[in-house]
Amino acid sequence: MNWQALKQQVLHANLELPRLGLVSFTWGNVSARDAASGAIVIKPSGLPYETMGADDMVVVDPDGRVLEGTRKPSSDLATHLELYRAFPALGGVVHTHSNWATVWAQACREIPALGTTHADYFRGAIPCTAVLGEAQIRGAYEKETGLAIVQHFRQAGIDPVQMPAVLVANHGPFVWGPDAEAAVHNAAVLELTAQMAFLTLQLNAQIPAMPAHLLDKHFLRKHGPGAYYGQS
Amino acid sequence: MNWQALKQQVLHANLELPRLGLVSFTWGNVSARDAASGAIVIKPSGLPYETMGADDMVVVDPDGRVLEGTRKPSSDLATHLELYRAFPALGGVVHTHSNWATVWAQACREIPALGTTHADYFRGAIPCTAVLGEAQIRGAYEKETGLAIVQHFRQAGIDPVQMPAVLVANHGPFVWGPDAEAAVHNAAVLELTAQMAFLTLQLNAQIPAMPAHLLDKHFLRKHGPGAYYGQS
Amino acid sequence: MNWQALKQQVLHANLELPRLGLVSFTWGNVSARDAASGAIVIKPSGLPYETMGADDMVVVDPDGRVLEGTRKPSSDLATHLELYRAFPALGGVVHTHSNWATVWAQACREIPALGTTHADYFRGAIPCTAVLGEAQIRGAYEKETGLAIVQHFRQAGIDPVQMPAVLVANHGPFVWGPDAEAAVHNAAVLELTAQMAFLTLQLNAQIPAMPAHLLDKHFLRKHGPGAYYGQS
Amino acid sequence: MNWQALKQQVLHANLELPRLGLVSFTWGNVSARDAASGAIVIKPSGLPYETMGADDMVVVDPDGRVLEGTRKPSSDLATHLELYRAFPALGGVVHTHSNWATVWAQACREIPALGTTHADYFRGAIPCTAVLGEAQIRGAYEKETGLAIVQHFRQAGIDPVQMPAVLVANHGPFVWGPDAEAAVHNAAVLELTAQMAFLTLQLNAQIPAMPAHLLDKHFLRKHGPGAYYGQS
Repeated sequence: MNWQALKQQVLHANLELPRLGLVSFTWGNVSARDAASGAIVIKPSGLPYETMGADDMVVVDPDGRVLEGTRKPSSDLATHLELYRAFPALGGVVHTHSNWATVWAQACREIPALGTTHADYFRGAIPCTAVLGEAQIRGAYEKETGLAIVQHFRQAGIDPVQMPAVLVANHGPFVWGPDAEAAVHNAAVLELTAQMAFLTLQLNAQIPAMPAHLLDKHFLRKHGPGAYYGQS
Repeated sequence: MNWQALKQQVLHANLELPRLGLVSFTWGNVSARDAASGAIVIKPSGLPYETMGADDMVVVDPDGRVLEGTRKPSSDLATHLELYRAFPALGGVVHTHSNWATVWAQACREIPALGTTHADYFRGAIPCTAVLGEAQIRGAYEKETGLAIVQHFRQAGIDPVQMPAVLVANHGPFVWGPDAEAAVHNAAVLELTAQMAFLTLQLNAQIPAMPAHLLDKHFLRKHGPGAYYGQS
Repeated sequence: MNWQALKQQVLHANLELPRLGLVSFTWGNVSARDAASGAIVIKPSGLPYETMGADDMVVVDPDGRVLEGTRKPSSDLATHLELYRAFPALGGVVHTHSNWATVWAQACREIPALGTTHADYFRGAIPCTAVLGEAQIRGAYEKETGLAIVQHFRQAGIDPVQMPAVLVANHGPFVWGPDAEAAVHNAAVLELTAQMAFLTLQLNAQIPAMPAHLLDKHFLRKHGPGAYYGQS
Repeated sequence: MNWQALKQQVLHANLELPRLGLVSFTWGNVSARDAASGAIVIKPSGLPYETMGADDMVVVDPDGRVLEGTRKPSSDLATHLELYRAFPALGGVVHTHSNWATVWAQACREIPALGTTHADYFRGAIPCTAVLGEAQIRGAYEKETGLAIVQHFRQAGIDPVQMPAVLVANHGPFVWGPDAEAAVHNAAVLELTAQMAFLTLQLNAQIPAMPAHLLDKHFLRKHGPGAYYGQS
């Protein structure tokens, strides 16, 4: 197996996080899944971004066993693994403590769809998980975080392809996409969306969610078989 | 016909948008009208700003038929066309999802005139259109957006020369001017104005609009035959 | 008379405004008074900062008659002149539409002294003038603005040396100091102070002004004969 | 004694403050304690950061007597000294007027623990001292400020190793760590935490503090014998 190209992609995607203002210090991580082997490449834990290289990336199997690399993987690895396990369409996963998205997570509130910027990327309110129970936190905490996300999507009937982000209560966002680059892009859009929704509610606390047909119009203008945004 | 110079202007005006912090990613578009031929030059849809060149600009006639260029025009073209059709003084049109203006649009609120910064550019409250109906959204959505703007201005008796901006409810701002450069400048001023009005209401929710004679004083100090701001 | 050095200082002070984030486009002006001749050097009206040179500065006498220079002086000149006339200690005056200070001006509220950052520069609440009447606005508007500031300070018994800033209602701040550089520094401090006071009130709307002895302690630690801040 | 290396560290830590956006102008100071001699190295008072060199740092004994250096030490020296005296684990102390932390201090409110970003660094609410009395302010003001911090920690039973920051009411934050670099890092984290807590309360004023077991989980994941974050 040769994961060199994917390690480069994951490195690059991780370095995008501070450049886009989504991560301070070492507070974030990106992983990607190799479609052929199912292996997952993830950032090492707690290394400074300035000196991180592709060879610091860690390759693990779907159960988290290290296949390649000498570093300890991100402490949030187990959360990533549960997302990949439950959502087969995922090719990349990002976790950040980006400012505005984290504020919604700390407030334990979903982000309502209030405008077309939101609708261009997220088909509905961006969900927020329930606060984890004490047993989950004391147990396999990071794995339980992933399971809580998956359970929330299943119970609410949310399609992770049409909703590529979630807020973990009291914590921050996890975001995904077909590959690491797309996941990082979605994380950046989430941050802008979270900021604008916050400010919109400050200006008009009674504003309802946008009309469903406007939400659908914009989401489907950019996604799916009838999309007509961009060059064909 | 030779639209080369106008294509350069439109390219330059589009590139100003991210530089001024008004646009993230590809979320914005500028067009300009050629006074002689009536043709309209507009940004292509969804191309990254970094690699866009003048030859990627698309030239269309007033009904949107492509006269020159190989790219697909911006998906918001039909909105631009309705504005040019209804408002003969317009030489340039800008659409962005700039943060603070979009927040007002998402809150479905007009921006009241609260100070002289506003009055220097906009003679009154910056209007917000009504939310589009389902039939308009399911139909020719982008054209209907333009028609809703035009209808709002006509019904409210607003002069588009003295009010070079509008908020489209649940969406974001459209801004214009005598040429593309002026339209971009007005879009930047709108953003600053929207931010200051937002914060002013946070500090004093009961503040009334500024006195009409102060509004007129500042607007007419910079615009029209009695203007005395700037070098003559 | 040779005002070349002062013109250089005024140019430099004007260029500091956009660098410090206090001015967008051409929305600001700095002047300075020549102690020997009483002449005032001020920025020209509406020129872009990028191409402005020392020779574009305009020298006027205390009544505003041009002594040197080919440009039209800032449209706010008459306000500056009233401040110099009434407050003999002033060597430099700045006007901006800086964001946070303007928000307080638009809200028609004085900025209460809430912390030591404020107290290090401003000995008490930063005042806000009354809204100008219609006759004043229709008349010699810019001169009336200056007179309203002076009247406010005199009626409230405020010492312009211990309070080097004022908010003009519905408009924005005027700030001063012993020279142009000090005035610009005070304008930057005002902006930070205005932001922190705004946010403090959002967090605790009932917070009273800081204790008077703490205000005095910090102001007098930096100003006057007993000051002990900085290198002697 | 040779404090040259420590002076370099303290210089570097001070220069980090404006780079991280924690300090405007000269409004901040960092000190460090030499473990061997107990001497303290601190920034000089009121010098511009641009021209400051290692030889401008001042070395004092634990009672503030100058051991080396020709500059006057920071006017906040006496506060630093009380912190070092009371808290033996401290190797570095930082004082700033950083925006968001100062807002909480001005509002005289502790920062509640609302999310894992907070919990990764601060084991509980970040305390705010009581407002100093008039006698303390008129007396040895800076020393009294330090004593008030120490008293607050002792009365509330707070461990300064698990809570490396405090807000001084009406003033701003003091932050510490095992050395100057760690103290500056904690000051940067405090600022981000203060901002997110502020915004979280704007979005959900009723949100309770995060569960204690989640707070402990995250703090102990990064600190102490059971920590598993980062490379071992």
